[in-house]
Amino acid sequence: MKEYQCALMLILICAGCFAYTVPALGDEGMWTFDNPPQKQIQEKYGFALTQEWLDHVRLASVRFNDGGSGSFVSPHGLILTNHHVALGQLQKVSTAANDYVKNGFYARDAKEEMKCPDLELNILISMEDVTRRVQGAVKPGMTEKAALQARKAEMAKIEKESQDSTSLRSDVVSLYSGGEYWLYRYKKYTDVRLVFAPEERIAFFGGDPDNFTYPRYDLDMALFRAYEDGKPVESKNYLKWNAAGAKAGEPVFVSGNPGSTDRLSTIAQIEAQRETYLPGRIKQYKRRLEVLRKYAAKGPEEMRQATSQVRRLENSLKVFDGEYKGLSGMSLMAKKQKEESDFRMQVSRRPELASKYGAAWDAIAAAEKKALNRYKETTFRSLRGSRIASLASQIVQYVAEVKKPDGERLDGFHESQLESLRFRIYSPAPIYSGMETVLLTDSLQESFEQLGQEDTFMKAVLNGQRPGTLAEQIVKGTKLTDPAFRKELIEGGQSAVDASNDPAIVLARKVDPFTRETQKWTEDNIDSVLTTAGEKIGQARFAIYGKTVYPDATFTLRLSFGAVKGYPMNGTEAPPKTTFFGLYDRSLGFDGKSPFDLPARYSERRDKLDLAKTLNFVCTCDTIGGNSGSPVVNKAGEIVGVIFDGNIESLVGNYIYNDADNRSVAVDTAGMTEALRKLYDAGAVADELESK
Amino acid sequence: MKEYQCALMLILICAGCFAYTVPALGDEGMWTFDNPPQKQIQEKYGFALTQEWLDHVRLASVRFNDGGSGSFVSPHGLILTNHHVALGQLQKVSTAANDYVKNGFYARDAKEEMKCPDLELNILISMEDVTRRVQGAVKPGMTEKAALQARKAEMAKIEKESQDSTSLRSDVVSLYSGGEYWLYRYKKYTDVRLVFAPEERIAFFGGDPDNFTYPRYDLDMALFRAYEDGKPVESKNYLKWNAAGAKAGEPVFVSGNPGSTDRLSTIAQIEAQRETYLPGRIKQYKRRLEVLRKYAAKGPEEMRQATSQVRRLENSLKVFDGEYKGLSGMSLMAKKQKEESDFRMQVSRRPELASKYGAAWDAIAAAEKKALNRYKETTFRSLRGSRIASLASQIVQYVAEVKKPDGERLDGFHESQLESLRFRIYSPAPIYSGMETVLLTDSLQESFEQLGQEDTFMKAVLNGQRPGTLAEQIVKGTKLTDPAFRKELIEGGQSAVDASNDPAIVLARKVDPFTRETQKWTEDNIDSVLTTAGEKIGQARFAIYGKTVYPDATFTLRLSFGAVKGYPMNGTEAPPKTTFFGLYDRSLGFDGKSPFDLPARYSERRDKLDLAKTLNFVCTCDTIGGNSGSPVVNKAGEIVGVIFDGNIESLVGNYIYNDADNRSVAVDTAGMTEALRKLYDAGAVADELESK
Repeated sequence: MKEYQCALMLILICAGCFAYTVPALGDEGMWTFDNPPQKQIQEKYGFALTQEWLDHVRLASVRFNDGGSGSFVSPHGLILTNHHVALGQLQKVSTAANDYVKNGFYARDAKEEMKCPDLELNILISMEDVTRRVQGAVKPGMTEKAALQARKAEMAKIEKESQDSTSLRSDVVSLYSGGEYWLYRYKKYTDVRLVFAPEERIAFFGGDPDNFTYPRYDLDMALFRAYEDGKPVESKNYLKWNAAGAKAGEPVFVSGNPGSTDRLSTIAQIEAQRETYLPGRIKQYKRRLEVLRKYAAKGPEEMRQATSQVRRLENSLKVFDGEYKGLSGMSLMAKKQKEESDFRMQVSRRPELASKYGAAWDAIAAAEKKALNRYKETTFRSLRGSRIASLASQIVQYVAEVKKPDGERLDGFHESQLESLRFRIYSPAPIYSGMETVLLTDSLQESFEQLGQEDTFMKAVLNGQRPGTLAEQIVKGTKLTDPAFRKELIEGGQSAVDASNDPAIVLARKVDPFTRETQKWTEDNIDSVLTTAGEKIGQARFAIYGKTVYPDATFTLRLSFGAVKGYPMNGTEAPPKTTFFGLYDRSLGFDGKSPFDLPARYSERRDKLDLAKTLNFVCTCDTIGGNSGSPVVNKAGEIVGVIFDGNIESLVGNYIYNDADNRSVAVDTAGMTEALRKLYDAGAVADELESK
Repeated sequence: MKEYQCALMLILICAGCFAYTVPALGDEGMWTFDNPPQKQIQEKYGFALTQEWLDHVRLASVRFNDGGSGSFVSPHGLILTNHHVALGQLQKVSTAANDYVKNGFYARDAKEEMKCPDLELNILISMEDVTRRVQGAVKPGMTEKAALQARKAEMAKIEKESQDSTSLRSDVVSLYSGGEYWLYRYKKYTDVRLVFAPEERIAFFGGDPDNFTYPRYDLDMALFRAYEDGKPVESKNYLKWNAAGAKAGEPVFVSGNPGSTDRLSTIAQIEAQRETYLPGRIKQYKRRLEVLRKYAAKGPEEMRQATSQVRRLENSLKVFDGEYKGLSGMSLMAKKQKEESDFRMQVSRRPELASKYGAAWDAIAAAEKKALNRYKETTFRSLRGSRIASLASQIVQYVAEVKKPDGERLDGFHESQLESLRFRIYSPAPIYSGMETVLLTDSLQESFEQLGQEDTFMKAVLNGQRPGTLAEQIVKGTKLTDPAFRKELIEGGQSAVDASNDPAIVLARKVDPFTRETQKWTEDNIDSVLTTAGEKIGQARFAIYGKTVYPDATFTLRLSFGAVKGYPMNGTEAPPKTTFFGLYDRSLGFDGKSPFDLPARYSERRDKLDLAKTLNFVCTCDTIGGNSGSPVVNKAGEIVGVIFDGNIESLVGNYIYNDADNRSVAVDTAGMTEALRKLYDAGAVADELESK
């Protein structure tokens, strides 16, 4: 839309002139910290962010590597995120006897703080533009495949050099579809301890129905503490707690790690999503969800085991549904189409751009068509859907990949990624056999249904057995549930894996050639084209728009801007804020039935609460999955809330930002400390937050 | 939809067989009390209504003749309705010094009860099927026009006979598009006194934004008392107050007077609405609203004067918008089209039906086309938009019409209607000159813009003057603001009106021939065709579906059935109920800004309230405009709430009932008595309601 507006501006105002800037429209964009939207903020909100503000907020921002965001909120390493970002860890430290997901957790002192089994946090310490070096690795006359390989090798080299010289986690990030490459260096914390989490019922009050909707009444918060050398980290860059919370109308900023967006996708790519990939994923997730729900219905322990995965699947399904509906509407696709044709017209009018980049769109369309022809093989010829399945695959690939030069390895196995990968593979988090069996059965059954019994993959894998029988044998026979055994295999290398008769490893070895074939085919035929053509489009964008636009999300640190603001909803207005009053109203409106039931303390201590305190609020800031747990920061650099969701109107934001009613949903700082003090007797941590 | 399903059932189950019943689907229908949906209730809710229950509820139901419903709720004539039904009367008894709309009203004892200037209430005492008599008046060989005339004359005769013999208000009602005619006799009350009304801010909390939406938090209630011979009416048929209010899931019934629906309209009629009439009305209402808002902005007194009309216009606009959007969606029209073509196919397959009724659809389509050609003349050649304008028109027509035989008179001037008409014409309610001037100016200006200066009507009316000048002169010069002067004219008859040089009467005399011309043209060319063809379609429906279907709404007493139930909304679920907690939440969510501000007593006395009491709830009962104030009655015949709105998804219900998420919104009895006792110190009336 923004580009479309630009094109229009161009025609109306300065026909024939190509030097212009993009007008500030909605509060759109997930901007990199090297290129904050100062112009838009100035024009719309009348001030500029200082470099000091930007550095402070960046260094206080925390990436949760399993897919979320957070921030330092005290000088002693205290970190705020969402309950649902913490959920995986909560589940891993829980047992049938001590169910912290259900009952919540509060460490009254340092001794009680509970170590997380496999949580890695990253702080973005520095950013360095390495575009020239990466793009420079491509020599004239190289094929597209060779160019891709050359860039990959150069990126791996840069990462390796950086890690060796700084000991910091070092990732080369591709931005603007390859228009720029940046080296991001992260400080890493792996000794992270749980300080506070409320009951899941209140963190996820309203459950799947209320997920991705607003008005909302969720205490979706959790507190961790980062340790180093056995001591709490001295986090001098922390966000000061604003005890009053968000005010309607005030400008706010979100600093977090949006996972991925496809806003720079071409129409051909979006259509492939709408016609094949999204419906396919919806179908896959629905069947997996059904299997898990059936498993969870067996009893309370099964329910506990399955909860976190059920939540993830429900969450994703609601996202896919929202995206699919958004893309199925006429108006959005028409806008996109107009935007793309305007952009292509500008490229075609400038001969130097046209010759370099003009063919990129058709190349992408051809590659998408090719990919669709092999959709079934590339999707279903794989081991997936259960933890044992993915551990076995990872181990079999690991020992083969690490023998190769870094530049030739599969993605995920580069030198700089190995430490984090091993950390995940060695995770002591429990593996539940019953759940593994039903999940593995279902994914094998699904492949069987999709590929048919004559498919060579299916023949190799099943070898005449039924999916259920095979899955049962594997889960029963495997020792991969033991982290020590996994370590043994990894450390034993190729020969240990080749010699293993662990049934999961045996199966993974059978699957490996198929996976490699589809990976190689996809890389040669699809990825290389998409990457190269995407880079061309990215460079064309650069030539026309410069850095007045923002890059697609890449699960790296971004800054969004906006204001606390309601929106038109279902014939009326959604309010900027909600309060504890509304929590009780919504619960009583359903007679307290699940998922609108409240923990006992909420009725027992209701009279102690100041019910008028803000619980949740909405802001116009542009966020997406991965932003969960991101701090909402005011002009003064103080935290006023924590992002935990987007409204239903925001879901199509993967493809386009919706100016009218896209909103991010946050828990308010005022509501958090009110709950900590009055409901959870957690005055000590509330005092720490409020620097008392 | 229902008919479509029937047709499908027919094909699937009993092809070639025509004796079948309509399957019970949603909680659809506004049923006459002679034909309650016993089968549907039995099948869905497992019980039957007794004749005693039906009679009791009917006799406790009250029609507010200016467009609403209500019910007796104590043995001493106490009547419950909505604040917004009472609003017109509240405004009429208010002055600048005593603004009961703004401040509310409570009569602490009988002496303080305040008489309403022109409120007429009707109770449906008896119902008699007169179909044979009315249809029998049509003799073989009569033209359609003559047939219409004959039916009208017969209806007027029946009404006159009944009124003479019983002294009861007697209306012949046409049901099923003329498939049946019934004589309804009403007991009438005109001495009606105001007992209680809350502040408009809480009755209409959320204002225009929240209107026709849910979740909702409105105390939209008012209490009147009916008097006869200066004493409270002994109302032995009253609805017992259920102090606990509505329970989620329980079956409930709504007894009230839905104004009108067009569910039996043909596609041609619906298309004419969608293409011309609805957009036209939206345009007219928008401009009138703009004029009134500008007037109201002049000061608090102007605001007070305009409030009730502004509300009505906003309300209608939201309805028209909702209808227009509903009809603009593809799915609804596709359904309607399918339904109509199935119905027509059934008619065409039965030769005796085909020959009698088969041509009706095309006749309607032709008449609609003809009407559209004269849309401008029939719409804009009229005096309208202000009270003086309509009083002048009514008086000029009155004296001419009453000279004719009853059967030849214009609708609205039949003998049986005259008493109520005079009651309205003689109303002492104040007329505000400033507001009259701007409204009359605008309607004249609108006609001028639509018809052009060369139109004979405009020439006759304006006579070279500008609309504003003319309106000013008329409002300044007329004595019609004085009820005694109006009475003088009516009683003086044609000669008095002919001799009058009151400028409003002079104008009305000029307009009268044009009005008569368009009325006659419409009657001869459109109404006669639509009525006759509509009757044919009605009879065809009878032949095929019998009384398993319900007739379109006619502002006569109807019974709807359903259950207290939430619904899918904006990605989540709307709750069955809301509480006082939610009222405070929504107000605070907007920082208490208008229209989400609360009267002072709501903050001062908040701690006294049991906030968990139900304030509003939704049920699946099928209602529409005119149902405002209808009691929601449980299985035991007790009142559990009062209908005050439909949700936004229900607006298209004028044309089709939406099974999925059509809901009626009600104030709960529990919330009402809680507010009366704790906020309004109105314990005496709460005691009367609860029979304490």
